[in-house]
Amino acid sequence: MERWQPKDPDWEARVRDSFARQRAMSQLQARLSRVAPGEIEIAAPFLEEWTQQHGFLHAGMTTTLLDTACGFAALSLMPAEAGVLAVDFHVNLMRPASADLRVCGTVLKPGKTLNICRGEAWIQRDGREILVAAMQSTVMTVTGRDDVRD
Amino acid sequence: MERWQPKDPDWEARVRDSFARQRAMSQLQARLSRVAPGEIEIAAPFLEEWTQQHGFLHAGMTTTLLDTACGFAALSLMPAEAGVLAVDFHVNLMRPASADLRVCGTVLKPGKTLNICRGEAWIQRDGREILVAAMQSTVMTVTGRDDVRD
Amino acid sequence: MERWQPKDPDWEARVRDSFARQRAMSQLQARLSRVAPGEIEIAAPFLEEWTQQHGFLHAGMTTTLLDTACGFAALSLMPAEAGVLAVDFHVNLMRPASADLRVCGTVLKPGKTLNICRGEAWIQRDGREILVAAMQSTVMTVTGRDDVRD
Amino acid sequence: MERWQPKDPDWEARVRDSFARQRAMSQLQARLSRVAPGEIEIAAPFLEEWTQQHGFLHAGMTTTLLDTACGFAALSLMPAEAGVLAVDFHVNLMRPASADLRVCGTVLKPGKTLNICRGEAWIQRDGREILVAAMQSTVMTVTGRDDVRD
Repeated sequence: MERWQPKDPDWEARVRDSFARQRAMSQLQARLSRVAPGEIEIAAPFLEEWTQQHGFLHAGMTTTLLDTACGFAALSLMPAEAGVLAVDFHVNLMRPASADLRVCGTVLKPGKTLNICRGEAWIQRDGREILVAAMQSTVMTVTGRDDVRD
Repeated sequence: MERWQPKDPDWEARVRDSFARQRAMSQLQARLSRVAPGEIEIAAPFLEEWTQQHGFLHAGMTTTLLDTACGFAALSLMPAEAGVLAVDFHVNLMRPASADLRVCGTVLKPGKTLNICRGEAWIQRDGREILVAAMQSTVMTVTGRDDVRD
Repeated sequence: MERWQPKDPDWEARVRDSFARQRAMSQLQARLSRVAPGEIEIAAPFLEEWTQQHGFLHAGMTTTLLDTACGFAALSLMPAEAGVLAVDFHVNLMRPASADLRVCGTVLKPGKTLNICRGEAWIQRDGREILVAAMQSTVMTVTGRDDVRD
Repeated sequence: MERWQPKDPDWEARVRDSFARQRAMSQLQARLSRVAPGEIEIAAPFLEEWTQQHGFLHAGMTTTLLDTACGFAALSLMPAEAGVLAVDFHVNLMRPASADLRVCGTVLKPGKTLNICRGEAWIQRDGREILVAAMQSTVMTVTGRDDVRD
């Protein structure tokens, strides 16, 4: 895995502030558990109100966390004036989850316009961590738009 | 678009019951607005508590609705004893959304084990409907598992 | 499906010339069977040298045709000075194929920078057409690069 | 990364034989450069006849190699009687490629029916390896079908 150099010296404050403004994250009681250039980790409890019909966490909720982790991983490497917006993502759901999640987002390749990221969602089972979902995503560096700022 | 024949005469009740058990759908105040064999439509209001940092609906919430529409479209064609589980999905996010959503899920190809679906999310703007997101997904027909029943 | 207006009056010649320069298309003996603004169709014969180990057409070959159809569908709506480049795509493979293909690419949403497309690959079986693969893709409008021109 | 245990003691011969039967791989002059349980590596030269209109390797060709690497990585962990078939894949294309490729496929999670894999395609530039494409894929373990055997 390559190490990336942030372009904005205030990248960490910017990531934390922007995360704090995500109302969806408060609803999911999610918090940033690790912040590094190009790498973000989120911890989120299992919440019964966000389950699907069999009592597992809804795949869309796992996706919400994965997308946020990937988006902020990309934001951490963007210039100060840019905002971040997801363009598309693909998610593989490997096992149904009914436990607290640890969700990581990592930048595979930062770019002037597009950033490619990967994400993983993990749960604890029988004393070890198992992978429940994996994302591959394209995240846009948005500039010059007043409504997309971070 | 092909027309599909449901295998379970009680398919509609089963879809409606299972949807009613999705706690994530109640949280999003979503309701089934159309139910047909292989085609499901969901209406969901714009909710500020589910926005991301710029005030747009979180892409993960749009995904939650798309995944549910595709999953129930697949379920509508499954045999009575089966349960439905998403395997993977890909979502393209075309425009940020801050409006009520109409979300459709359609079966492209039903199968004994795997079902391929497509979904679209639409908003109203300037008197016409515009597409904000599109999904392509793989949904599994699960049999013989007590914890996955619909 | 929306109708799109080409930006370049010479769009059709540009699509046909660029397609003719794709050496991969000559290798696959593929030809443009329909060209309309935002919609491209390719016909390609089943070629045994492009099969995988069970004698079916390699999924990568179906993808090559789908990607080309989507890319040129996007190019047909781009301004004259732009070039086209695929950013990412997702493909669902519904049935193994060992027959001639009809492959369509359609623009779901054109954009200044990114274009979202959908593609389908069809074969004939028992007197009717059946769907063997479906793509959803993100295609970039590239400007100012001498090595990416169409 | 987890280490996986092959179920078939003859897994390596089976992978090599099956790869040798892929006519698409001979066309691309691709060879297996590494074979381990759950991990496959392919080396393929840059071939001008497989370029797109700007002279870069066609994204579909990179995909063909990625799909093969992921498929055989999954096959290496399957029971003796099974065959392998790709269900769907997502590919991010990070940089246009006009150089020899090293392509890796790795199993993220093997399963009785579905296997989730990741793939990467690398080129050499300025004395170091750079990533040109990344795949996430779903591969099926097929049993009881005479036309899908490995």
